[in-house]
Amino acid sequence: MEENGKKGYEDLGFAKPDFDREKRQGAGEVIYGSGKTSEQIIKITKALAENGQERVLITRLDREKAEEIKKHIDIKYFDSGNIGVYGNMPDGCGEGCIVVATGGTSDIPVAEEAAVTAEFYGNRVKRIYDVGVAGIHRLLGYKKDLEEARVIITVAGMEGALASVIGGLVSCPVIGLPTSIGYGASFGGVSALLSMLNSCASGVSVVNIDNGFGAGYLAGMINKMKTYEV
Amino acid sequence: MEENGKKGYEDLGFAKPDFDREKRQGAGEVIYGSGKTSEQIIKITKALAENGQERVLITRLDREKAEEIKKHIDIKYFDSGNIGVYGNMPDGCGEGCIVVATGGTSDIPVAEEAAVTAEFYGNRVKRIYDVGVAGIHRLLGYKKDLEEARVIITVAGMEGALASVIGGLVSCPVIGLPTSIGYGASFGGVSALLSMLNSCASGVSVVNIDNGFGAGYLAGMINKMKTYEV
Amino acid sequence: MEENGKKGYEDLGFAKPDFDREKRQGAGEVIYGSGKTSEQIIKITKALAENGQERVLITRLDREKAEEIKKHIDIKYFDSGNIGVYGNMPDGCGEGCIVVATGGTSDIPVAEEAAVTAEFYGNRVKRIYDVGVAGIHRLLGYKKDLEEARVIITVAGMEGALASVIGGLVSCPVIGLPTSIGYGASFGGVSALLSMLNSCASGVSVVNIDNGFGAGYLAGMINKMKTYEV
Amino acid sequence: MEENGKKGYEDLGFAKPDFDREKRQGAGEVIYGSGKTSEQIIKITKALAENGQERVLITRLDREKAEEIKKHIDIKYFDSGNIGVYGNMPDGCGEGCIVVATGGTSDIPVAEEAAVTAEFYGNRVKRIYDVGVAGIHRLLGYKKDLEEARVIITVAGMEGALASVIGGLVSCPVIGLPTSIGYGASFGGVSALLSMLNSCASGVSVVNIDNGFGAGYLAGMINKMKTYEV
Amino acid sequence: MEENGKKGYEDLGFAKPDFDREKRQGAGEVIYGSGKTSEQIIKITKALAENGQERVLITRLDREKAEEIKKHIDIKYFDSGNIGVYGNMPDGCGEGCIVVATGGTSDIPVAEEAAVTAEFYGNRVKRIYDVGVAGIHRLLGYKKDLEEARVIITVAGMEGALASVIGGLVSCPVIGLPTSIGYGASFGGVSALLSMLNSCASGVSVVNIDNGFGAGYLAGMINKMKTYEV
Amino acid sequence: MEENGKKGYEDLGFAKPDFDREKRQGAGEVIYGSGKTSEQIIKITKALAENGQERVLITRLDREKAEEIKKHIDIKYFDSGNIGVYGNMPDGCGEGCIVVATGGTSDIPVAEEAAVTAEFYGNRVKRIYDVGVAGIHRLLGYKKDLEEARVIITVAGMEGALASVIGGLVSCPVIGLPTSIGYGASFGGVSALLSMLNSCASGVSVVNIDNGFGAGYLAGMINKMKTYEV
Amino acid sequence: MEENGKKGYEDLGFAKPDFDREKRQGAGEVIYGSGKTSEQIIKITKALAENGQERVLITRLDREKAEEIKKHIDIKYFDSGNIGVYGNMPDGCGEGCIVVATGGTSDIPVAEEAAVTAEFYGNRVKRIYDVGVAGIHRLLGYKKDLEEARVIITVAGMEGALASVIGGLVSCPVIGLPTSIGYGASFGGVSALLSMLNSCASGVSVVNIDNGFGAGYLAGMINKMKTYEV
Amino acid sequence: MEENGKKGYEDLGFAKPDFDREKRQGAGEVIYGSGKTSEQIIKITKALAENGQERVLITRLDREKAEEIKKHIDIKYFDSGNIGVYGNMPDGCGEGCIVVATGGTSDIPVAEEAAVTAEFYGNRVKRIYDVGVAGIHRLLGYKKDLEEARVIITVAGMEGALASVIGGLVSCPVIGLPTSIGYGASFGGVSALLSMLNSCASGVSVVNIDNGFGAGYLAGMINKMKTYEV
Repeated sequence: MEENGKKGYEDLGFAKPDFDREKRQGAGEVIYGSGKTSEQIIKITKALAENGQERVLITRLDREKAEEIKKHIDIKYFDSGNIGVYGNMPDGCGEGCIVVATGGTSDIPVAEEAAVTAEFYGNRVKRIYDVGVAGIHRLLGYKKDLEEARVIITVAGMEGALASVIGGLVSCPVIGLPTSIGYGASFGGVSALLSMLNSCASGVSVVNIDNGFGAGYLAGMINKMKTYEV
Repeated sequence: MEENGKKGYEDLGFAKPDFDREKRQGAGEVIYGSGKTSEQIIKITKALAENGQERVLITRLDREKAEEIKKHIDIKYFDSGNIGVYGNMPDGCGEGCIVVATGGTSDIPVAEEAAVTAEFYGNRVKRIYDVGVAGIHRLLGYKKDLEEARVIITVAGMEGALASVIGGLVSCPVIGLPTSIGYGASFGGVSALLSMLNSCASGVSVVNIDNGFGAGYLAGMINKMKTYEV
Repeated sequence: MEENGKKGYEDLGFAKPDFDREKRQGAGEVIYGSGKTSEQIIKITKALAENGQERVLITRLDREKAEEIKKHIDIKYFDSGNIGVYGNMPDGCGEGCIVVATGGTSDIPVAEEAAVTAEFYGNRVKRIYDVGVAGIHRLLGYKKDLEEARVIITVAGMEGALASVIGGLVSCPVIGLPTSIGYGASFGGVSALLSMLNSCASGVSVVNIDNGFGAGYLAGMINKMKTYEV
Repeated sequence: MEENGKKGYEDLGFAKPDFDREKRQGAGEVIYGSGKTSEQIIKITKALAENGQERVLITRLDREKAEEIKKHIDIKYFDSGNIGVYGNMPDGCGEGCIVVATGGTSDIPVAEEAAVTAEFYGNRVKRIYDVGVAGIHRLLGYKKDLEEARVIITVAGMEGALASVIGGLVSCPVIGLPTSIGYGASFGGVSALLSMLNSCASGVSVVNIDNGFGAGYLAGMINKMKTYEV
Repeated sequence: MEENGKKGYEDLGFAKPDFDREKRQGAGEVIYGSGKTSEQIIKITKALAENGQERVLITRLDREKAEEIKKHIDIKYFDSGNIGVYGNMPDGCGEGCIVVATGGTSDIPVAEEAAVTAEFYGNRVKRIYDVGVAGIHRLLGYKKDLEEARVIITVAGMEGALASVIGGLVSCPVIGLPTSIGYGASFGGVSALLSMLNSCASGVSVVNIDNGFGAGYLAGMINKMKTYEV
Repeated sequence: MEENGKKGYEDLGFAKPDFDREKRQGAGEVIYGSGKTSEQIIKITKALAENGQERVLITRLDREKAEEIKKHIDIKYFDSGNIGVYGNMPDGCGEGCIVVATGGTSDIPVAEEAAVTAEFYGNRVKRIYDVGVAGIHRLLGYKKDLEEARVIITVAGMEGALASVIGGLVSCPVIGLPTSIGYGASFGGVSALLSMLNSCASGVSVVNIDNGFGAGYLAGMINKMKTYEV
Repeated sequence: MEENGKKGYEDLGFAKPDFDREKRQGAGEVIYGSGKTSEQIIKITKALAENGQERVLITRLDREKAEEIKKHIDIKYFDSGNIGVYGNMPDGCGEGCIVVATGGTSDIPVAEEAAVTAEFYGNRVKRIYDVGVAGIHRLLGYKKDLEEARVIITVAGMEGALASVIGGLVSCPVIGLPTSIGYGASFGGVSALLSMLNSCASGVSVVNIDNGFGAGYLAGMINKMKTYEV
Repeated sequence: MEENGKKGYEDLGFAKPDFDREKRQGAGEVIYGSGKTSEQIIKITKALAENGQERVLITRLDREKAEEIKKHIDIKYFDSGNIGVYGNMPDGCGEGCIVVATGGTSDIPVAEEAAVTAEFYGNRVKRIYDVGVAGIHRLLGYKKDLEEARVIITVAGMEGALASVIGGLVSCPVIGLPTSIGYGASFGGVSALLSMLNSCASGVSVVNIDNGFGAGYLAGMINKMKTYEV
């Protein structure tokens, strides 16, 4: 496979890291760790770092692979969200607050993928976990936090009703993040996904099942919106 | 098709009305009107009446067919639930209270099928309509009614979150009745059905999409339970 | 994650045990064991016990995890239904009889989850196992038990016809509990689930595939209904 | 489109009637009426008749089209099963008895397609209609007829349990014929189809939803089996 | 159905218009016109207007019903998006720009539902129609418009690739709005929905198939975000 | 679980072996080995043997479990079809010929389950393996065998076309036995199942995916049909 | 909507006809008629004609709309395939032969869409209709035509086996074109689609259900391939 | 199982290698390695080699099995595509160029199965990997390679948009090869499959999910087309 030579990315053969993304999309290239070897991840990270990307996010990275990578390059590993970070996390920045809420305890790993991603991009995150609708007083106890949020990520498996209930309580954008938690007719997250897509609350949109990265990235993007000036 | 002669039902050829059901199940045979001609409905109603059934419930009966039937036998037609009743509705009886709650306005016809069915079997019904979770204060305004109920039927299409939210608020059995209201990824009621089946609230069970009769019948059965005595 | 301080639950960070549930729903909080570590289960159990909950039900608990937990707190393990119980099971109480019937031998673990759950909440349970419709004389041999039941849980995989057949024989509520037993076009319990949802017998409602807890809890709720008094 | 000239069929351009089928399969070519114009049906019927086929079966033929066809060729129309027959039906033949049983009244048109098809191929048919499992005493009243049958076609929509229940009572082949009767989670016959495919009774096989012709044809084929001689 | 008396909504029996929504969510109650009679729509509109809501949006309103309503109250009808508006549309406001892009000509009605909704809430909208990926130079011709947008709604049926391609070109939030346009294996919009959910571009979230209102509402919400100040 | 005492089966608690089946269905009770412990299988086999059943078929039995069982009772193990047999296989009997044909090599285990089952019930079986339609000359080479068969079982995964092609060549009943062989859009046998259900050839019926036992049992039942005598 | 001014297409507002396509893809822009008004079709056709496109293909055009269009511009209408053509069809060209084969008579309209499309692009087409696999001698009668073809389009609904059988007989590319013909478990063409995707024959690829245009266009593209020269 | 004796294949019992395929289809028999033992693969390879087949392709062959086979016969193993080859690969031949493009790094194994297959049949292949549409400049950088290709295989999981985007850029046949790469709502490749089937670009056809062999084989077939001469 010959070198392409065109600017904007490097051809590693098995991958073409996109150096142009920061300029084009305002955020550096990300590495989806699942299905890549630690060797491949190291090579891509180095290529990005050498082209001036300050910090690199590696998602879906299991502990074992992270340990292997640490022997070669300096990454910090976030166990809770299966995320590795090359470079320093940004300082506690002042863009405001993203809330990440889960229906249950089992949804936490997906929620953490979202939360750490948002933090990686310089956002402050408030976690509100295990506030599923079966005991709605737990959720209502956080009403003030919800109302002050600029964006909310609702993380739920099973029947996924959390997105609708929160969507009906607040006036900010709500991102539905369905998880594959459940059994039987939850069909690996399809039930929660459909619930969220059919939400009767306005202002709710949805990302793929278990896509914590996508939700965290989008939440950060919205959180950082600037007032429009003519 | 020769006459079978065995007790317990009559062989009309196209149907075998079950005279035994009242004894066996504590409630008379019901006629599912959809797909039957008004002529067939009249014949079955007569056969049941002649065998001593005091009142007959005819579900899924459209207005036009009802008008046709009225020319031959005396039925009362409930427009709201597409239900016909032969014989008198029972007097306001004292068994307690079934609540029928809907998420939206479009769910009302299915809710009425459930409510009228329950009334037909001698139950008192309280209707609480259009209290979907997107404006949860509307629902919480009825908290007292919900807590006093002996059984609650939650009727909802779209994301069907109503069953879980109500299920988390009360200590009585909740029957989830998904409706085919919605569009796109509601898939004719599948989204609401899955939501209800995956409810994280305890005490929730589910009937078929749009099966108002089934929900109303079961609610009546539960409402009439007697205290167990050893 | 800061302490919320509001009454009604405790914030353990990864979970918010609901101390309010007994008051609100007449039955204490339950722990869904699957996907939780034994450490997490111990912490939640202790939090509930310290807040006055007399006994705690832990579902979907495998033997290995149960052994681990036993080293720290005193639980009784029910192998047949993968259930752990903290505190004593209630005395043989007199509320009447719930029947749990299965189509085959392989459905027994799900049936036991339902049966032990009902017993945990103080109900008497009669088990009738392996009475699938392919040899209907076996089922008919239990006709008296079925007729005397106050609620019946029908547990079946494959074609799930048991719910309809039993539903047609009795006058009490029937809870359809589909199981994931089967292969090929049983699609992990979907075939049985659809059968039960489409049951032509009245008085049948359905819970999620393999949801023994949900069926047992609801059956107990119905069994304990009191006669309505005006 | 040029004439092919090869033996065994005629090329009408839009169709190639198969004159060889009787020899190859022991039964003449059949016309699937749906989606064909009356003109096309007449042409194919004539082509078959001119090539010596004594009688022609036309399935899925609505009344209107049948009336149109009758103006040109002599057919008998069976309203109940939407079937047209060119030539005479065979005399009451002595091959034994096929039972066609339905769960409900609405399943009758599909059942009649099966029954008339079987009669067209010279079989005696006994119809037992509206014996669904919700009132199993109606079915048990026909136990003798079922036991004497050589083949049984069970026709049912909704939960389709009839095939399993009958399959468990008899020792002859049972053909499951699911119908599209039902609503909501019956999914146009899928629920009944899955039930029958997952039947726990031995000796049950299944044909396509609403495929009355296929069931009737196969039943006749089995009914006419001769004792094997070495 | 007795009057509830609680503030925040009015009980019309068939509906409970939510007067509280503007305060709670920053935007007045909306009427989903499909499945409501013109009479019901008029009543709800009046109830909202009398409670101080300045303008009312009526979605999924066909021309015929709109004409009927116009006889009683003063609404403006937007043919292209099947939308009715009571009260005046807001003046050309200065919050910046939402782009609505479609893959084809047939997607326009759904796109217009989104565009008019956004305009109703005071946003400026730029329409870029028929720029599907099969001729990507058409899309690239609008690169400047895309880069200047604050939010983009991508409207597409069939394979729905538009969301990913645009998502990869810009640095603002992209809302995927799948449409039911297509045939065969597009399955009424499911193909486009899945494509958008699986988008490999970051910053893309999705609403229900054909949910133009939801996309337009959310886009407006994001567009009006203010710079965060600590 | 108390002893029921009724004739026709024995209550082992976890199972109720059906002693009546031979009389009722002309063939003894069968043990579905999957999901049963070797201990359970031994107990059921003994119970059946003690009640006079001459030979017992144990399906879905893996080699390991078979070895364990052999230590306690005398069974013969058929590796190719994962079948165990207690008692002697019947002598080469003279009822005629069942053909079992497969599309590929990977379908053989399912085919063997069917073939050994048929042999267990006293039928002669001819195996024709790896004759898929991609090289139809291989199939046509067996035309004489196919034409002489009394019943044919067609075993195929992937696109399952074998059933239709064979069905069009012969005049005997054809049983479609779809297998879960394949990948991607074969969806675990669904593609083959649908193909066979939609077969345009007459005389084809279908059993569940991988249900070799069901196909073999039914084939034997049909093969043994006797000429009807009035 | 302002005029874009960029070369390569014209912005008609509701559509952007692509003048560049012929250069880019070797074939002019096509109009998908379904869902467009006759007015829109006329405008696009004129825009294309004025930009030098010699002939324009309009697919999915019903007769009524075609008649309306004929009043304004000169098109030829192909009834059999619902296709309109502006400009002259190309002369009988010499690129070789595409075979279009159907399983049944009902598949012909889809087949004609494919055949006329191929002819529009200057290919010779041989039609072989109603040669489904249930009577395989009809297909084998055309073996010579099949072997001489350069590309074959197999058009079939129901079980779709035709693609595999033909694919196994020839050495040229085979395009599977599933149709929505069928009922019940054919699921609107899904069964045929899956069959063709799972074809065990090599050289088979598939287009969308009923996508006659796509198959015809691709077949023409392949047929016109030139020998590679280094 | 007796020897059939007919020419064109050998009956190994478990398989019938097709010696006739080269003559019939212009390419030798291929061995699908998955689910076959190394012993079976060796036997079939030998049978083919002894009948004059020069080289044999073994697909879906894992490394371990390949090592086992190497002990007995001489094969070359292609790790990247899980392919084994008996005999020599053909010399760099001059038929022109097939492009294999992937959306991501994880799609490479499937792409390699396609690429090596095409090379096995004597085609030159250019690999362009990791050019997914989320960074479309990477793809546009290869525009010249794409335009010079005679056939293009687009390999993508997730949303599968690559096929449409490439299909819109070129004038040669494009083969969509969906992969099972992804998670959540990618449903094991279904999302990519549907995207490709619904492609709005002309000239695109699709093979089964992960079917690298099928795509490579077909691409070779098309690449080797000769100019038609009358």
